[in-house]
Amino acid sequence: MAEAGFTVVRLAEFAWSKIEPRPGDYDFEWLDRAIDILAAHGIQVVLGTPTASPPPWLMARDPTLFRVLLDGRRVAFGLRREYCPNHPGYRRAAQDIVSCMAEHYGQHPNVIGWQIDNEFGDRCYCPICTTAFHAWLQERYGTLDEVNQRWGTVFWSHHYTAWDQIPAPSSTAWPPNPGLGLDYSRFCSDSYVTFQQQQIDILREKSPGRFITHNFMGFHYDQINYFDLAARLDLVAWDNYPSFQWNMDAPLDPTLPALSHDTMRSLKQQPFWVMEQQAGPAGWDMLGPTPRPGKLRLWAYQAIAHGADGVVFFRWRTATVGAEQNWHGILDHHGRPGRRYEEIRRMGAEIKTLSRYLEAAQPAARVGILLSYDSRFSLQLQRYNPNLDYTAIVREIYRVLHRLHVTVDLVAPDGDLSPYRLVIAPVLHVVSETVAENLRRFAEQGGVLLVTARSGVKDDANRVVQQPLPGLLAELCGIEIEEYDSLPPGATNSVRFVSPWLANGQTAEAHTWCEVLQPNGAEVLAEYQQDYYAGRPAITMNHLGAGHVIYCGALGGHDLFQPLLRSLLETAGVAPVAVGSEDLEIVERRQGDRSLLFVLNHHDEAKDFALQSDYINLLDGAPVKGTVQIGPNDLVILAGQNNHEG
Amino acid sequence: MAEAGFTVVRLAEFAWSKIEPRPGDYDFEWLDRAIDILAAHGIQVVLGTPTASPPPWLMARDPTLFRVLLDGRRVAFGLRREYCPNHPGYRRAAQDIVSCMAEHYGQHPNVIGWQIDNEFGDRCYCPICTTAFHAWLQERYGTLDEVNQRWGTVFWSHHYTAWDQIPAPSSTAWPPNPGLGLDYSRFCSDSYVTFQQQQIDILREKSPGRFITHNFMGFHYDQINYFDLAARLDLVAWDNYPSFQWNMDAPLDPTLPALSHDTMRSLKQQPFWVMEQQAGPAGWDMLGPTPRPGKLRLWAYQAIAHGADGVVFFRWRTATVGAEQNWHGILDHHGRPGRRYEEIRRMGAEIKTLSRYLEAAQPAARVGILLSYDSRFSLQLQRYNPNLDYTAIVREIYRVLHRLHVTVDLVAPDGDLSPYRLVIAPVLHVVSETVAENLRRFAEQGGVLLVTARSGVKDDANRVVQQPLPGLLAELCGIEIEEYDSLPPGATNSVRFVSPWLANGQTAEAHTWCEVLQPNGAEVLAEYQQDYYAGRPAITMNHLGAGHVIYCGALGGHDLFQPLLRSLLETAGVAPVAVGSEDLEIVERRQGDRSLLFVLNHHDEAKDFALQSDYINLLDGAPVKGTVQIGPNDLVILAGQNNHEG
Amino acid sequence: MAEAGFTVVRLAEFAWSKIEPRPGDYDFEWLDRAIDILAAHGIQVVLGTPTASPPPWLMARDPTLFRVLLDGRRVAFGLRREYCPNHPGYRRAAQDIVSCMAEHYGQHPNVIGWQIDNEFGDRCYCPICTTAFHAWLQERYGTLDEVNQRWGTVFWSHHYTAWDQIPAPSSTAWPPNPGLGLDYSRFCSDSYVTFQQQQIDILREKSPGRFITHNFMGFHYDQINYFDLAARLDLVAWDNYPSFQWNMDAPLDPTLPALSHDTMRSLKQQPFWVMEQQAGPAGWDMLGPTPRPGKLRLWAYQAIAHGADGVVFFRWRTATVGAEQNWHGILDHHGRPGRRYEEIRRMGAEIKTLSRYLEAAQPAARVGILLSYDSRFSLQLQRYNPNLDYTAIVREIYRVLHRLHVTVDLVAPDGDLSPYRLVIAPVLHVVSETVAENLRRFAEQGGVLLVTARSGVKDDANRVVQQPLPGLLAELCGIEIEEYDSLPPGATNSVRFVSPWLANGQTAEAHTWCEVLQPNGAEVLAEYQQDYYAGRPAITMNHLGAGHVIYCGALGGHDLFQPLLRSLLETAGVAPVAVGSEDLEIVERRQGDRSLLFVLNHHDEAKDFALQSDYINLLDGAPVKGTVQIGPNDLVILAGQNNHEG
Repeated sequence: MAEAGFTVVRLAEFAWSKIEPRPGDYDFEWLDRAIDILAAHGIQVVLGTPTASPPPWLMARDPTLFRVLLDGRRVAFGLRREYCPNHPGYRRAAQDIVSCMAEHYGQHPNVIGWQIDNEFGDRCYCPICTTAFHAWLQERYGTLDEVNQRWGTVFWSHHYTAWDQIPAPSSTAWPPNPGLGLDYSRFCSDSYVTFQQQQIDILREKSPGRFITHNFMGFHYDQINYFDLAARLDLVAWDNYPSFQWNMDAPLDPTLPALSHDTMRSLKQQPFWVMEQQAGPAGWDMLGPTPRPGKLRLWAYQAIAHGADGVVFFRWRTATVGAEQNWHGILDHHGRPGRRYEEIRRMGAEIKTLSRYLEAAQPAARVGILLSYDSRFSLQLQRYNPNLDYTAIVREIYRVLHRLHVTVDLVAPDGDLSPYRLVIAPVLHVVSETVAENLRRFAEQGGVLLVTARSGVKDDANRVVQQPLPGLLAELCGIEIEEYDSLPPGATNSVRFVSPWLANGQTAEAHTWCEVLQPNGAEVLAEYQQDYYAGRPAITMNHLGAGHVIYCGALGGHDLFQPLLRSLLETAGVAPVAVGSEDLEIVERRQGDRSLLFVLNHHDEAKDFALQSDYINLLDGAPVKGTVQIGPNDLVILAGQNNHEG
Repeated sequence: MAEAGFTVVRLAEFAWSKIEPRPGDYDFEWLDRAIDILAAHGIQVVLGTPTASPPPWLMARDPTLFRVLLDGRRVAFGLRREYCPNHPGYRRAAQDIVSCMAEHYGQHPNVIGWQIDNEFGDRCYCPICTTAFHAWLQERYGTLDEVNQRWGTVFWSHHYTAWDQIPAPSSTAWPPNPGLGLDYSRFCSDSYVTFQQQQIDILREKSPGRFITHNFMGFHYDQINYFDLAARLDLVAWDNYPSFQWNMDAPLDPTLPALSHDTMRSLKQQPFWVMEQQAGPAGWDMLGPTPRPGKLRLWAYQAIAHGADGVVFFRWRTATVGAEQNWHGILDHHGRPGRRYEEIRRMGAEIKTLSRYLEAAQPAARVGILLSYDSRFSLQLQRYNPNLDYTAIVREIYRVLHRLHVTVDLVAPDGDLSPYRLVIAPVLHVVSETVAENLRRFAEQGGVLLVTARSGVKDDANRVVQQPLPGLLAELCGIEIEEYDSLPPGATNSVRFVSPWLANGQTAEAHTWCEVLQPNGAEVLAEYQQDYYAGRPAITMNHLGAGHVIYCGALGGHDLFQPLLRSLLETAGVAPVAVGSEDLEIVERRQGDRSLLFVLNHHDEAKDFALQSDYINLLDGAPVKGTVQIGPNDLVILAGQNNHEG
Repeated sequence: MAEAGFTVVRLAEFAWSKIEPRPGDYDFEWLDRAIDILAAHGIQVVLGTPTASPPPWLMARDPTLFRVLLDGRRVAFGLRREYCPNHPGYRRAAQDIVSCMAEHYGQHPNVIGWQIDNEFGDRCYCPICTTAFHAWLQERYGTLDEVNQRWGTVFWSHHYTAWDQIPAPSSTAWPPNPGLGLDYSRFCSDSYVTFQQQQIDILREKSPGRFITHNFMGFHYDQINYFDLAARLDLVAWDNYPSFQWNMDAPLDPTLPALSHDTMRSLKQQPFWVMEQQAGPAGWDMLGPTPRPGKLRLWAYQAIAHGADGVVFFRWRTATVGAEQNWHGILDHHGRPGRRYEEIRRMGAEIKTLSRYLEAAQPAARVGILLSYDSRFSLQLQRYNPNLDYTAIVREIYRVLHRLHVTVDLVAPDGDLSPYRLVIAPVLHVVSETVAENLRRFAEQGGVLLVTARSGVKDDANRVVQQPLPGLLAELCGIEIEEYDSLPPGATNSVRFVSPWLANGQTAEAHTWCEVLQPNGAEVLAEYQQDYYAGRPAITMNHLGAGHVIYCGALGGHDLFQPLLRSLLETAGVAPVAVGSEDLEIVERRQGDRSLLFVLNHHDEAKDFALQSDYINLLDGAPVKGTVQIGPNDLVILAGQNNHEG
């Protein structure tokens, strides 16, 4: 490991039964020894608390320790994450093992940080959670009357007269009341936040000076409000497996890890770690394709380009036992160094010389995309259309910006918008008064705001608003929505841009959802071309002093959002990191006026990149000018001549 | 509402927890007030009994109140219709709330009728139902010996020696014994019939002079024998949502509501109501496409054309809360009148002048299609072929007749066939002695009878008959079936018509199922052309005095059934309402020799209709002659000059 | 039956409730009478023990008698095979009924054999099985430490400290630990083996001189180790339904029953029976296509060609009751002889004159395909790739040999390989030391061995081996596997043959899985042509004295395996039964140098077969020379002139 340039190792995240083979019978010797060996080679340690994988002797105590699925079945022992996060007995056991580990290693000089549990998630619908949900509701709303009121339990005779009448959602009664459903999703998210907090409290006390983190699952995981989960941690880390999920229709897309990196960086507006970086072919019972030569190094550099401060590969050697036999490490099952080892070792050497350039530099975004977990949770319950997918729509918009080489943050709807010139609100379905006010303030202060279809539909209680849509955003957008049309899969309309501001005369395809807009002060940017709403407005722009609010009532793809975002960037005065070369990923880390340009080629063929000025490629120290060729699955890191201290 | 021309409103069908928020604590004030306001505007009220949506305090009493699904899971609280229809505790609670409402409103001058519960359905497989099933069997068959005999429990060692050994069907033991399966389906249907009867008895006593109805779910709902459910009601009503279910392959098809209207009218051979007529885009978590301008009015007129006496739109204003937030009313969530309101208001005005023409006039059918719930239930258990779908086959035959503008009734197999000249028995799979006799009588008295493949296979106990097929119908049809062949999906044979009676020389495609017929007195009308049974008979005609019995051993589509039905109509001497114009729906309401012709254009483009003589268009009072153009999603209602009293 | 030439009838395999309608109340009268009538017509009887279908009165005793599914649901009464095979109460009841039947019929002169239960299978996951599994583990491994060690329970904190902590697999925790999963599959297989043994013991004692068999389900059934199930029986029988499962993509394929026949013959290296030979269209709720004229006779002769000593059609008359109403017998529901009866009667007459030729002659294979239930069970847990299907890969290889008219045995990996010149190890995923040694011995003694991709990956405990792949076979194969690549569905690579030994210069498609080979003494036979491993070895040959070991690292289809197997057969000196005519099935039964050639035409058109010498067609006694035409779904049985004693 030392030879390959590793400086940090994560350990023990699933080692509960190894540390405590029998109740109260602790064995740290093996782990002490491992940490000592690592220390002897200058490798520091992040310790995982092992609460994601309780030992059999613990789970055998009580069947209610096991989670219950939405379909009512109780999970059996045999994987990991079997536990109910609200079970008092489980919480006690978790506190005990964490306390004990923190006592033992809290001040160990070679232990630099803690990872709590592993990949929190998985909602539980058991009676204990249901009762905890009642308490959560009582805490949040005070009275049953308030709950009945907010959820509209007058509908279908659901008026509750006692807290314990309130059920958890169930697949036998799906979809749930929208208010109950959204609150249960929030409650499940909060359950893990409080479960985590109990461990944070212990570690803060017993292991001062060490960072505390958790390994998140990127942008695409949608069962926990990650802003909440990140709030009390020192550091966000996440697990990055670009080729875990694969199919022929959607081959490896570098946009996906990019979006996750930017999301993870944005959670705390801080550098993040990749705690598990893919090190080989991956899968459980199924195995994804083998990463092509260069990919592992390229993916790790992509993380760094987007602001990662640490990248930890998972795992060192492939396990010969257990359900992750197919989750390949740097070394194969046989343990001999091979192609993947060599690739990572090369990178280890490079990083040594690179690190001083990277230190304070970070991506600096002037564009923010709102990431609303309330909207996401709401749309999980009521999707409206098979193709109306919150995650996919955010990804579509992000992809356009990513290909335009624009640096992007993902921001909570009630977050600080002052750093941004352009803010995008995709499917901002649930809008509270606070959020509406936040957006209004941003626009009034000269910001450019894009709001898409299906925004402003719901209030904080997941009720449809009683105003014309987009509800609390209607006045801001200067429109009212007259009608909407849910298009069957495969059906399309088209949109014609009718303003010099926006690709005048061009057309784009609309699919999935079309809203017919009634301008109420806003100017019309595009009109539908088909069906009974042909000629009616599809996109509008409202002017608020120096600010501009664009409403896009149609959903579509690249041909719709690319021209729209280009015009928006221009209006907002946001310059991309580079122009052209859409087949390359170009990302900037910047500190003051010093800039590092990462140019990544994710293709299996070489690509040319035309330089705007002269640079040094930090990977080999060579000056580059004119055009630089970047090999397949390779990259260059460019520093302006004045940047380069070598 | 009054302004829009409404004269009736349905109320309170899910309002149990609003009426009785706590056990025994009744609150009618809000409902009194609503009914008074409506009365003040001349709007009458149909009250729903709220038993489809029990309040939480009731369901919290006992977990056995909840239904059990075929897969053994007990339904959780959270939707509606959670209840077991045979639970004595639930039946008692239902009687109490209905008695109480009937006491309060039974003689209210503005209450004109009652709707019982809401959309009965959903089979229950719980222990209480299983025990009730035992009693149902005992009542029906007397002894266990008889049950064992009828079900053939000698097979697989299923001989029962005690009633309580008899299970309900379960997806863990599927398919069930055919006899048990059919009887359980009948029992479930009867469970709702008796559940409903308890409410009828209360309402008859406490609310004399008011009609009693239930809102059925049209032709396509196949879990209850609707002839039985309708028998003791005063009026059949149903809920009509033409665009609730949609996909690109089968766009909005006006045949589907037409078939349901005709079915609903036929259940009691009486005018019916539409108790819920679609008023906007509809769906629960998914949302169907927005009805195009004109559709709502057109659909409502379609109901009237097929014999509806009342059309109640669902709903007035879209709910901002609850699981039906997407089930759009005439008004959107914001409550302001819009396009849909205007369309319905226009119709309200029209109806005022139309009603006197409509009064006694009704569709008058000379063609009956047998609708056999026994056959339908039997085929739910044993489908034989992925494409052998009872509902689809009836629809295919109905569609041919609908395009030919022929008025059709749907008739119970043991119903009165004397009004008809042509009777069609599609997939009459289960045939009792009574039904066989009914068909024989019809044919002998000069009727024309069409029997399709897979008819006469089962006796009343769902046993395969021991005679050659089509069993009890074999002699009547003058054939025996020598072999049958279940075709894999996509495979076809073809059929050549070989008689001057039937499109001599033409061919048609056969798919799904081919029976090789052995004439036994019948004449051959068509032969197969492929495979080892090429040249063997596929369609035959038997002559019984003045009557004719046609047997069609192949299943197919329009090219098979259209020529066949044309010849049958001619032989039966049934004239369609109009000739040609297959892209228009043309329906007649007739009283004596006065005739109203509804010509409906369901397309998004205008269509021409060539008139046979001169008419008055009752919608605008204008005389029409020659050719009339009908706008997109519009209609004309034509009265002969002599009909028109204006 | 006698008229149709039947000499044996199987009876009573599901007749428990008929024999013992009430506990302890036995009724043999009806069965005595049936056996007497059959005896009077010279028809002998095989009796089934009825333990596959317990009567309701037995199952009503205790809910724990019912099996539990992988998803945790307990099976309900209503089909057959509901029972838990480890339930002590069920085992006792089974012993009682079998003892009683054996007492009554054990020495009956007309009873010639016994079939135990019916189509064993269906794993159970109930608590009783879980406890039995603990005992099974204790018996096999002695200590928990050994179990923890072998399963690698250190992974994910699964270290067990008490036997009763060990769970059965569950779909709520899928996939299970690979060691636990494989052992549970073995345990389930053993459960039926021991359940069967209890009946064997009773029958051996009470019915001496009668053969004991069970009706297996052919090659394709993969839940029981059939070598183990066959070991203590006198005779293997199986149930052959060539058109039970059908679809348009894979029409009736004569390779499938051929492969099953060869597997069943190989289990004991003895002639076998078909205990249920398809007699008409078949299915439960769905019905397969009707067998074309000639098929029933042809399928029965196919069984004989592959070594069947007895063929019993299922069933005589189609049941009019029960879940198998669609499982057609020789007679239809009405019981009148028809086309199928005539076809079988014809065969009955033929068999009378044929039998003396068939007697000692048997297929004689020089090629063995290894059938590894351990590998099959292991791949059920971890399939690696959607298209990596053990059954399909064996079938693909078998199909090539079948079309080349090569006689094949299916052999256990630790079986006697000395009869074979060529042994094929397809996906030999789990390899014990014993198996590795068996293969080494075979090759060293001059055999030709083909090993395919994904062999040698796992040890006996389902751990990945710690050596380079193919693990214990690496040295034998003279290679190491450097990398492997799991190809997404639809993706392909291609392979070029680069040795004069193997179709030099030709190419073939590779899909699903590609291994990059590192020769370590072996010679390269083929190379990949695409992707980053283009030019790297795909197929190699290692020489061990007189033996040859070929390793094929790519998976593919006919174009890959056909040239490879042709070269292997040539090297091994194995001559096919005939050359050319790949559209005919040609099978040989041989005794010494006397040979019977079965030439079967499974097509719906006639085919020509060119003879190498002069023969007698035993079916009609006519001499044939030059070219013989074989009608659709017909066959000839050819004996050399010297063979023919007529």
